[in-house]
Amino acid sequence: MAITIKDVAKLAGVSTATVSMVVNNKADRITQKTKDDVLAAVGELGYKPNYTARSLVSSESFTIGLIVPEITNPFFAELARNLENHLHQAGYVTFLCNSGENLSLEERYIDELIGRSVDGLIICGLTAENKEKLKLLEKLSIPYLILDNRRVQSNFSIVIDDFEGGKLTAQHLLSLGHDTFAFVGDFSDYQNIYRRYEGFSEVLLKAGKEIIIYKTDLTRKGGQKIAKKIFNSKATAVFCSNDLIAVGIYEQAHLDGLHLPKDLSITGFDDISFAEILFPKLTTIKQPLEEISKIAVSNLLKMIQNSDFSFDTLVLPVKLVVRDSTGKPNVPSS
Amino acid sequence: MAITIKDVAKLAGVSTATVSMVVNNKADRITQKTKDDVLAAVGELGYKPNYTARSLVSSESFTIGLIVPEITNPFFAELARNLENHLHQAGYVTFLCNSGENLSLEERYIDELIGRSVDGLIICGLTAENKEKLKLLEKLSIPYLILDNRRVQSNFSIVIDDFEGGKLTAQHLLSLGHDTFAFVGDFSDYQNIYRRYEGFSEVLLKAGKEIIIYKTDLTRKGGQKIAKKIFNSKATAVFCSNDLIAVGIYEQAHLDGLHLPKDLSITGFDDISFAEILFPKLTTIKQPLEEISKIAVSNLLKMIQNSDFSFDTLVLPVKLVVRDSTGKPNVPSS
Repeated sequence: MAITIKDVAKLAGVSTATVSMVVNNKADRITQKTKDDVLAAVGELGYKPNYTARSLVSSESFTIGLIVPEITNPFFAELARNLENHLHQAGYVTFLCNSGENLSLEERYIDELIGRSVDGLIICGLTAENKEKLKLLEKLSIPYLILDNRRVQSNFSIVIDDFEGGKLTAQHLLSLGHDTFAFVGDFSDYQNIYRRYEGFSEVLLKAGKEIIIYKTDLTRKGGQKIAKKIFNSKATAVFCSNDLIAVGIYEQAHLDGLHLPKDLSITGFDDISFAEILFPKLTTIKQPLEEISKIAVSNLLKMIQNSDFSFDTLVLPVKLVVRDSTGKPNVPSS
Repeated sequence: MAITIKDVAKLAGVSTATVSMVVNNKADRITQKTKDDVLAAVGELGYKPNYTARSLVSSESFTIGLIVPEITNPFFAELARNLENHLHQAGYVTFLCNSGENLSLEERYIDELIGRSVDGLIICGLTAENKEKLKLLEKLSIPYLILDNRRVQSNFSIVIDDFEGGKLTAQHLLSLGHDTFAFVGDFSDYQNIYRRYEGFSEVLLKAGKEIIIYKTDLTRKGGQKIAKKIFNSKATAVFCSNDLIAVGIYEQAHLDGLHLPKDLSITGFDDISFAEILFPKLTTIKQPLEEISKIAVSNLLKMIQNSDFSFDTLVLPVKLVVRDSTGKPNVPSS
């Protein structure tokens, strides 16, 4: 039979309220001797405080589950940190889970978080096949939000204007005089990456320009692997669909002795904090992390406090940050 | 009164086993019609599956709490990812919490994780004042491990040979012919940083060299703020006590038009993955992340499975990775 707080109180010779204050770290006004007695009883009986039971009374657990696809991508680390800050200010703590874009792991995390009475979930980069779990969350009346919505059309999404990001990049590179362009990334499975491509290509195809598409993983390694092919092409400007790909291309460019941006103009997407420490500093599309986080937390808390609150997909603006990795094309014959 | 699985089963006209399979996502052999009925009943009654109760039966929850001081420092993101990989391979999921090196938040996370029946905890960068919580964990027989032990002498710690890292750095810079050295960081509150300094200074003071100490935060901003003072000093070689400080110094060096390593040799500590994309690539001390993670997970699982298992502090070796940010000193008069 499970050990209860009453058993601990009895053995320690104190009230259950006192035990509760000691195990909940709210024992400022309790003497050291009493604290020691309570902890001794806790240890002897093997008592484990049950915060889930506690939260049945207060109805809220003030805990949020946050699932990200890859925490070593600084974009998601920075997004998680921003979200966590806003949640903390509102009195909530955050359990962060890394899905690795693995469907079964993502599902398991959602289950484990539900079972630990989180008040709501924020899911970044939800896998396409995971619609069943969203249905379950809705049935259980557990509010959730989708960020960095790569694959699924869903309610409660906060997205950025990927299409505009692609357009801004194309206009910038076009204004520098480039003629042949490369797009690097993978949009077979990512709707948001496809929208970046759509915006990019709309501007360039209208201007009668050529785009070469290089398919690769959205990682630093993905950039490294594809770099030589791009260097050997006639493209003079490269739009990387995220900053990590650009990092990988930079590495190979330095190895091959290329001069950036003289030999090749490179742009990214996200504006991770490391974009500024690349050499040359990376021209990229800035995602409004602070605004995304603020709105996400504010909307999630409204959903928690009022089950009738709802919202459609919100689209937030992006902006182009011009740094040193883009310049005029190097045309030897001119 | 709380809604139970029996209420759901009754309303849906199925067995409790069927309800359990549907809410636990193990309903492969159940028809869509039955699934829909169960979910409809779940929704109507507002049932919430209680995984904590479930884990009372199986005694293990297969969940680990992992607390890190700052997830936007790539060192901790990479460490967390490595730990999570090893835990996942062993069948455990990880709840990651970011303490921001804030004592009260760290304590709250420990409480929330205990209350959600984690099988064990890994705490990175524990704050000095937090000995009470370790006592509580021991009383509750919840195994824990301390990594990146900055401040507290504690059992169950896995640390690296910080002293040796400082020594290796000093020997390398000395062999290049440097004469005046800077140490950048903050060891007033961090024992591990102090050990790095001890190793560094032991070698240099024995060789009769001078060390100028620059106190600053262990962040990129910390490096940026102190950089100009270092450039104006007579130091020709700088030992940054982590890689992020080096990143900040690089930024100011590029702004000021310094040539690295001709004008200044710079070394770091950690070997975050971004050390390789800095220009020039950063010479640094590599922490054995993969080995730390493997041993940490293996020992934590042993502690979970066998309450008698214990170990003293483990010290893992480091190595110097020489890249392009260190060279001979630039002595104009020679």
